[in-house]
Amino acid sequence: MTEHRLILDTDPGIDDAMTFAFLRGREDVTIRAITTVYGNVDVGIATRNALFLADRFGIDAPVHAGAAGPLATPRRPAPAHVHGLDGFGDTRVADRFAAEAAEGNAAEAIVRLVRAEPGAISILAIGPLTNLALALALDPGIAGLVREVVIMGGSLGYGERRGNVTPVAEANVANDPVAADRVLGAAWPVTMVGLDVTARCILPAVLSARLAGEGAIGRFLYDISRDYEQLYRTHDGIDGCCIHDVAAAVRLVAPDLFETVSGPIRAVTSGIAAGQTILKPIDQSFPPGAWDGLPVQRAAIHVDVDRLLALYEAAIAR
Amino acid sequence: MTEHRLILDTDPGIDDAMTFAFLRGREDVTIRAITTVYGNVDVGIATRNALFLADRFGIDAPVHAGAAGPLATPRRPAPAHVHGLDGFGDTRVADRFAAEAAEGNAAEAIVRLVRAEPGAISILAIGPLTNLALALALDPGIAGLVREVVIMGGSLGYGERRGNVTPVAEANVANDPVAADRVLGAAWPVTMVGLDVTARCILPAVLSARLAGEGAIGRFLYDISRDYEQLYRTHDGIDGCCIHDVAAAVRLVAPDLFETVSGPIRAVTSGIAAGQTILKPIDQSFPPGAWDGLPVQRAAIHVDVDRLLALYEAAIAR
Repeated sequence: MTEHRLILDTDPGIDDAMTFAFLRGREDVTIRAITTVYGNVDVGIATRNALFLADRFGIDAPVHAGAAGPLATPRRPAPAHVHGLDGFGDTRVADRFAAEAAEGNAAEAIVRLVRAEPGAISILAIGPLTNLALALALDPGIAGLVREVVIMGGSLGYGERRGNVTPVAEANVANDPVAADRVLGAAWPVTMVGLDVTARCILPAVLSARLAGEGAIGRFLYDISRDYEQLYRTHDGIDGCCIHDVAAAVRLVAPDLFETVSGPIRAVTSGIAAGQTILKPIDQSFPPGAWDGLPVQRAAIHVDVDRLLALYEAAIAR
Repeated sequence: MTEHRLILDTDPGIDDAMTFAFLRGREDVTIRAITTVYGNVDVGIATRNALFLADRFGIDAPVHAGAAGPLATPRRPAPAHVHGLDGFGDTRVADRFAAEAAEGNAAEAIVRLVRAEPGAISILAIGPLTNLALALALDPGIAGLVREVVIMGGSLGYGERRGNVTPVAEANVANDPVAADRVLGAAWPVTMVGLDVTARCILPAVLSARLAGEGAIGRFLYDISRDYEQLYRTHDGIDGCCIHDVAAAVRLVAPDLFETVSGPIRAVTSGIAAGQTILKPIDQSFPPGAWDGLPVQRAAIHVDVDRLLALYEAAIAR
């Protein structure tokens, strides 16, 4: 069994909460730290929610508060219609929860933890990539010391839904395209798990309901995801909800479930395509351009959804 | 039989020459004028080549010289490695041909011809869209008077090859993205025939050779396309060549061969995605953005290649 030592960078969020629960249920995962970022909610709520989830799920890891906004572009409004004002579907379940974040900013914590275990730490980033870009700015040398970076974000245009905040942009990358471009262009191995696959990772309503009957964690996730599921039902005609962030976590522990394409990836930072990710396929050549000299990264384009859901169910029920 | 009265806007070019030959062989097409533009070659060569092709193929239509460069962005170098320095695969077959273009610039001619036959004229644009944008600037009212605009250009990312000059940009749109954005945003019905379909419209080498044996036009097209075909063989591993421009012409006369998607389409005018076309699907909703209020256009995403080639063969052999 491969052991995964993780930094989880997150903006909880419904599918973030599902990801916490999934990781908790994996024997092969140790979470070294949780770092928080604005995105689905403001960073203060994200940090409180991360502390709440760690407590509720018995995850023994420090929570470090991170960035409150993007590096260089305007802050997009938090999507309260998706995750609720509280990040938990307006259940307000964490409203009165109080705990203190650990000392040190998220970016500093990333640098320190990577330096402490060179070559051993993977980063699972399921929010905007601001903290990761700041960590690279603080210490570019960490890129060579991280085992793997898996991000939920971006889209290459495989599949029907190419973007969720514009016709080509996914929310996490759109929230900080400058940071995404830094992270995708750094010399660490990045796998992008974007809408190409996550839009197909639909947790059926019937499975959510079954898990709700099997234990407290399943019940909690069911309770906070009522509006989220309803949004997919009315907006996309789906009887279930996309578990975007979970898909990235599954890629980390079970990479064989995914098919990927390879090439340097850029994020568009301005104009009508801002927030779009563009991969130059390694087997296609073009005149000299903006992808030249950048590291080859990977992006998931297909996933075995049935096996993904089976892994999710097993972890939640555990 | 539907009669098509065309303005052909072109930058000949190998597959432009094939398009001249295809249109000549269609009883249902009358070419009202040929307008020329830089692109595959400089506009002076494009105009000479258009005059040469009209003469050689017996097309009785005036040739109006048009734009020498894009509206607002730098001129990209002409792709001599694709079409030859002379636009005819360096056969130099037209080097000593001399004829005069008709009075009046391409954009003026477009306005005049559209105004002369309101509702009757279709525009087939198989080069950069500068002349069409200039015509709209001279007289925005023509948008409501054109029957249809079919362009070879752009890409939506269906299919393996998403761009041919960058990972997301097709050459005609990349040559003048500002003009393309004007043309796609105008209130005339545009169908974009981009790399999504044209990259699959491969004229097999064996068919080129057969047509060469069947008549002077097939022979001429065979002779000028030797290097072009070889480029596809070595660059893309194809035993044949893409007849991009012909695909747009076929869309005009035989629309049923194509499947399309609908929505407002923008062209990206700057940054690393410059030259990309982005369609907002009419059945997907996003936060307020750059596609709002623009006319719904169409883009071809699938084509029946066998039937397209059959139409091509029939027209060339005629």
